[in-house]
Amino acid sequence: MQKTKTAPTSSLCRFNESSIFIRDRDLCEELIGKVNFTQMIFFDILGRMPSRTEEAVINAMMVTLMEHGLAPSAIATRLVYSSAPEALQGAVAAGLLGAGSVMLGTLEQAAELLEKIVQDPEGIQSAAEKQARWYRENRLPLPGFGHPDHKPDDPRTTRLFALAEELDISGRYVQSCKSLSVAVDEVYGKHITVNASASMAALLCEIGIPKELMRGFAVICRSAGLVAHVCEEMNNPLAWTISQAAEDAVSYRPNEPA
Amino acid sequence: MQKTKTAPTSSLCRFNESSIFIRDRDLCEELIGKVNFTQMIFFDILGRMPSRTEEAVINAMMVTLMEHGLAPSAIATRLVYSSAPEALQGAVAAGLLGAGSVMLGTLEQAAELLEKIVQDPEGIQSAAEKQARWYRENRLPLPGFGHPDHKPDDPRTTRLFALAEELDISGRYVQSCKSLSVAVDEVYGKHITVNASASMAALLCEIGIPKELMRGFAVICRSAGLVAHVCEEMNNPLAWTISQAAEDAVSYRPNEPA
Amino acid sequence: MQKTKTAPTSSLCRFNESSIFIRDRDLCEELIGKVNFTQMIFFDILGRMPSRTEEAVINAMMVTLMEHGLAPSAIATRLVYSSAPEALQGAVAAGLLGAGSVMLGTLEQAAELLEKIVQDPEGIQSAAEKQARWYRENRLPLPGFGHPDHKPDDPRTTRLFALAEELDISGRYVQSCKSLSVAVDEVYGKHITVNASASMAALLCEIGIPKELMRGFAVICRSAGLVAHVCEEMNNPLAWTISQAAEDAVSYRPNEPA
Amino acid sequence: MQKTKTAPTSSLCRFNESSIFIRDRDLCEELIGKVNFTQMIFFDILGRMPSRTEEAVINAMMVTLMEHGLAPSAIATRLVYSSAPEALQGAVAAGLLGAGSVMLGTLEQAAELLEKIVQDPEGIQSAAEKQARWYRENRLPLPGFGHPDHKPDDPRTTRLFALAEELDISGRYVQSCKSLSVAVDEVYGKHITVNASASMAALLCEIGIPKELMRGFAVICRSAGLVAHVCEEMNNPLAWTISQAAEDAVSYRPNEPA
Repeated sequence: MQKTKTAPTSSLCRFNESSIFIRDRDLCEELIGKVNFTQMIFFDILGRMPSRTEEAVINAMMVTLMEHGLAPSAIATRLVYSSAPEALQGAVAAGLLGAGSVMLGTLEQAAELLEKIVQDPEGIQSAAEKQARWYRENRLPLPGFGHPDHKPDDPRTTRLFALAEELDISGRYVQSCKSLSVAVDEVYGKHITVNASASMAALLCEIGIPKELMRGFAVICRSAGLVAHVCEEMNNPLAWTISQAAEDAVSYRPNEPA
Repeated sequence: MQKTKTAPTSSLCRFNESSIFIRDRDLCEELIGKVNFTQMIFFDILGRMPSRTEEAVINAMMVTLMEHGLAPSAIATRLVYSSAPEALQGAVAAGLLGAGSVMLGTLEQAAELLEKIVQDPEGIQSAAEKQARWYRENRLPLPGFGHPDHKPDDPRTTRLFALAEELDISGRYVQSCKSLSVAVDEVYGKHITVNASASMAALLCEIGIPKELMRGFAVICRSAGLVAHVCEEMNNPLAWTISQAAEDAVSYRPNEPA
Repeated sequence: MQKTKTAPTSSLCRFNESSIFIRDRDLCEELIGKVNFTQMIFFDILGRMPSRTEEAVINAMMVTLMEHGLAPSAIATRLVYSSAPEALQGAVAAGLLGAGSVMLGTLEQAAELLEKIVQDPEGIQSAAEKQARWYRENRLPLPGFGHPDHKPDDPRTTRLFALAEELDISGRYVQSCKSLSVAVDEVYGKHITVNASASMAALLCEIGIPKELMRGFAVICRSAGLVAHVCEEMNNPLAWTISQAAEDAVSYRPNEPA
Repeated sequence: MQKTKTAPTSSLCRFNESSIFIRDRDLCEELIGKVNFTQMIFFDILGRMPSRTEEAVINAMMVTLMEHGLAPSAIATRLVYSSAPEALQGAVAAGLLGAGSVMLGTLEQAAELLEKIVQDPEGIQSAAEKQARWYRENRLPLPGFGHPDHKPDDPRTTRLFALAEELDISGRYVQSCKSLSVAVDEVYGKHITVNASASMAALLCEIGIPKELMRGFAVICRSAGLVAHVCEEMNNPLAWTISQAAEDAVSYRPNEPA
């Protein structure tokens, strides 16, 4: 745990008997009924209201990531809800715990890779080729590339890149992502899908969201998706079916001591 | 665990190689870049797009509930983040777990109480008086009434009721809440604050959100507030201060066996 | 949140530069290498060392409840682990969240029911008949009765009751449980399995564990069982199989707005 | 998520109407009433019963790590419990989430460092000096060294090393830890405390526990400690005091946009 060097302070909230201030703005006078949820999220996290373009990018990211069907985290949420229906928050928390390095971590890693390309003094094209070769030679998974279900292209990437054009933010990060895709196809000798993590990372970089905060936005919209699963589970329970299917799919293996 | 009676199905998501459908709408063609986060949340949970008014109410609720300063759940999030900074999702999950009966449960209970008043055949005023007397006589806590910090009135309630007027949804639930407030003041012989849980419950009831889904919306916006605390903690760590303050505030008591 | 009325104190732990005391005992001099895990759990929770009999009952309960195979909570743990392998603690936490009212709550409820029978002034047999009739008439689930897999008897109950004889603690709670079983079979007109929740509750009541602490002991041994699942998952991953089986078992249903 | 290459199997549990088998042993005939909690944990995780010595080491580790007083994870547990008392499992889960890299990760890292020393062909003493210099030169934190409260020595380390002698398992890992301590004091020019993570890692290595499973054992005994905090919180609530102390310790800082 890090010791605070200066006086311990927080800017998020203060209140008195008649008013509440969030980051210096009067919640009741300036925020409720005046700003929407997306603006409030951006404001609470970053301390300033988003521009129209920033708001559009955050909305696009939130809409893209919210719902993934019966993915592992949604299954965890539904099973926990069925075992402890008195604590909806626990079911959502269980699913969020699955939003770890494998799924949401790639967003950060993709952003990091794009940053390296953008900051390379040799220029985007040359840097993209260098990175593609490096990952290939080291046989490491390329963050933001490949998808088990969407081929040859991830429709979300196509859409997000088109949106970047519409919003006029198709800058060096989007360019780096596209150059990397060209370089990857050449170096690997086949077309590899640019997945939604890569294109989302590019758009978030374009509007200046620090990469360490990206997982935060992702967690917010995943929690919304998990709530939708709990709500469906309330009226249309799947937990028993899932649990039974899991049991049936796995057979017993005689014990071997470790 | 409840056994599904019919064939196990889900309407949330399906996909193929080139498209993703969320509740029958093409994610890339119809949703990304077309709808905002609030609309998408409402759509994913309830299966239809919100009207302008419904969207405004959900936004108002989300903005109202997001940020509570160093409340217990935010403290839990900050302490867990400082102990396991590699897993931001775990820190948010820890805080969400505190979104239980004490805080968010009141939203549901307040909605239930307002429903009873609205559905009472003797009319709102008479029903409100009956309920106020019942809670007083049974010495039970009145859901949605009382607040430790805001007196005489909770500024959020004042604002939310004004918003209901603006949006022209000040119907039977808002009326029940106001009548209950009058009855409560008379029965208890003093003014008791109508807190934000009561007024939010009234507005959500007015747009027809089932009370068992209310906690779901609350969990989504609390997760956003908790992300803001993690993000502040990254640059401005408070965990050590909090932990130290807690230790200093508690003294050792010799052991007494249970 | 409850305000402490007296000075805030804790008896669990104090330390100085050279010593650590847990509930007044020197951790290094009196506990490490001197007491086992079960004794330490009992001591940390209840403030005194268990007797031989108490220790045997806690061990029996822990051994009985630890491992349940691919139950919903173990599935949640495995899926979360596979999505966030960097955070083993998150995977265990996710599974623990499923240890709610449906599974572990029955332990408390069964204990409550046995207490009612034991405390009934009309005597155990008459009280058992009264309770059986009451549950039957009100068509409520009988806590601790019925099991989907074990018929006609739950082998754990048979074993736990035999252990109670061995330990010479087969007193009024075990007797109440047995009388209730006889009454239930008569009132319902068929044999209903006395499951492990009922027999464990009886044994824990016999050694005086307050019913509100029972879930605590259950949570500890469930966490051990979930760790075993994570450890197996490390070398023998099932998450993909489970996830795929769940997807295959659920079909898409066209959206119907709520 | 890793795809299983062979048929998906699990050895943990199988059952039929009349019997339950855990890793091939009959739960009711061979385990309940026959083995204790520590033996069962070892058996469920590793697939074989521990020897007397292995059992003693696991007990010592569990007893050492269980209770840490008002540490960040215990505070998180108490705050979450006070906000959602209906879900004890959520409170324990919240605290467990804080058992991350900062606290429990050091156990693994210390084990890894000791392994490097043991496996170094140049011998323990030379390897210990090499490692001490490497950490010093790279200004990296030395896993298992240093403690804010215990000076000059951590009493748990003194006790655990004495226990290793008693159990006659003071082999190459314990020796490596002691050699490393000598080397560290020389290289850093001052005495640095060998903390309990280092000595526990040494003992667990001596009995052959793979380092990636160590966090699992730690999570189990931390969950027991957190249950003790919930149980104390039930009768002696500290959450309000802690929460108030935290608020008082932190002052408001005017907002600065990120």
